[in-house]
Amino acid sequence: MNRLKCIIGYDGTNFSGYQIQPNKRTVQADFERTLQKMHKGDLVKIVASGRTDANVHAVGQVIHFDSNLEIPETSWKRALNSMLPEDIQVHSVEFVKEDFHARFDVKAKEYRYKLLLSKDRNVFKRNYAYHYPYPLDFNAMNNATSYLVGTHDFTSFCAAKTEVKDKVRTIYQITIDQQEEELIFSFIGNGFLYNMVRILVGTLLDVGRGHIPAVKMKEILAQKDRSYSGKTVPGQGLYLWEVFYQDWKNV
Amino acid sequence: MNRLKCIIGYDGTNFSGYQIQPNKRTVQADFERTLQKMHKGDLVKIVASGRTDANVHAVGQVIHFDSNLEIPETSWKRALNSMLPEDIQVHSVEFVKEDFHARFDVKAKEYRYKLLLSKDRNVFKRNYAYHYPYPLDFNAMNNATSYLVGTHDFTSFCAAKTEVKDKVRTIYQITIDQQEEELIFSFIGNGFLYNMVRILVGTLLDVGRGHIPAVKMKEILAQKDRSYSGKTVPGQGLYLWEVFYQDWKNV
Repeated sequence: MNRLKCIIGYDGTNFSGYQIQPNKRTVQADFERTLQKMHKGDLVKIVASGRTDANVHAVGQVIHFDSNLEIPETSWKRALNSMLPEDIQVHSVEFVKEDFHARFDVKAKEYRYKLLLSKDRNVFKRNYAYHYPYPLDFNAMNNATSYLVGTHDFTSFCAAKTEVKDKVRTIYQITIDQQEEELIFSFIGNGFLYNMVRILVGTLLDVGRGHIPAVKMKEILAQKDRSYSGKTVPGQGLYLWEVFYQDWKNV
Repeated sequence: MNRLKCIIGYDGTNFSGYQIQPNKRTVQADFERTLQKMHKGDLVKIVASGRTDANVHAVGQVIHFDSNLEIPETSWKRALNSMLPEDIQVHSVEFVKEDFHARFDVKAKEYRYKLLLSKDRNVFKRNYAYHYPYPLDFNAMNNATSYLVGTHDFTSFCAAKTEVKDKVRTIYQITIDQQEEELIFSFIGNGFLYNMVRILVGTLLDVGRGHIPAVKMKEILAQKDRSYSGKTVPGQGLYLWEVFYQDWKNV
């Protein structure tokens, strides 16, 4: 029996998210169906670093599973990619210790969020960025991120319905980069609450538009109340970019 | 009554091509449905520079139609974009003379074809490029294009079932550019036969792989027989890039 760690990517457009749900197309269900075929009908469960929602993409999602197939480590990637649907791909496969756990061992994650700033919408980017054709004050937004970096109770930036009790998380780094007509937010932290990145971006956009001052972030955090932060931006701009299993260090 | 010329773009992924077909989703049907709503139920036919096939994209398709609506020229673009489906967009609208014809007046067209050369497939590009992870001899391919530029009978590069009689066309320019992991072919000519660009690319790839020498292009043209040329590459790599209504001049 081998435990395998896979870095996978998927285009979230045609999935109802990562996690299995009845009568919905999900990444987990499609991946497990592929494994079941490879294992002659035996069910093989996969464990991911965390879920992603409907329409959310992944460039560096990590999963693990156990297999008794006698496939060499270097042949797994090709074997999986040849059987997976075309909107899921495996970037790498490695044999890991039997106690490696894709979720419990996570030390940090990077999420990115893409805005399309162009005046006109773009048919080719409609599923891959959030069209936001409004003037933004980048300085104010960067200023606002300084209040968010660090260890805070992020209750105000978490979907109200979440059942997780401890809402203290640490954000190591936030960057905002313009690349041609796109604005790319990057968030690296030790963990993210439900909808946290999308609410953070929505609130930073309120700052960028001048609707609230950057320093207001401090107050929003202190309120510990979802109703004080901005709206949840749409899923199609969000990418699970990388999962770190070693302490994240700014380099 | 005004005649309107629109430059439009569409993501061909979820269309069965441009032209109306019963029980299929097509660009023409969706555009005419939008116009019908705007014209209180009156049917408004559109005329395009030419058709595109299933999965083929357009960046600069041109259409015309006539309308008696009293919408100012500068308001049409926004009005259309607010009602069209999200995979069709209007780039520009202008009032033109009543005898302008989007198909008959075409002087030249540019098509582009995108290959993804990376070893691994890419979930985000699966509908927008043809994955071709094989080594290619770019010199040989560029060499081969020199035999294709000019006025020739392109019968060998036309789907066999075509009913068009005159298969003489002029290609003004062919370029092949590598941009990171993509290889982009551009073809500019006074007209293109059915599947012509896709067969030209398929044949140039045979040259690039070393399966046939560049000079063989001369012989393939002379044969005037589809069975001598290469395979038809898939539609999702093809883009109708620009339509010219003035003589095309290499600048």
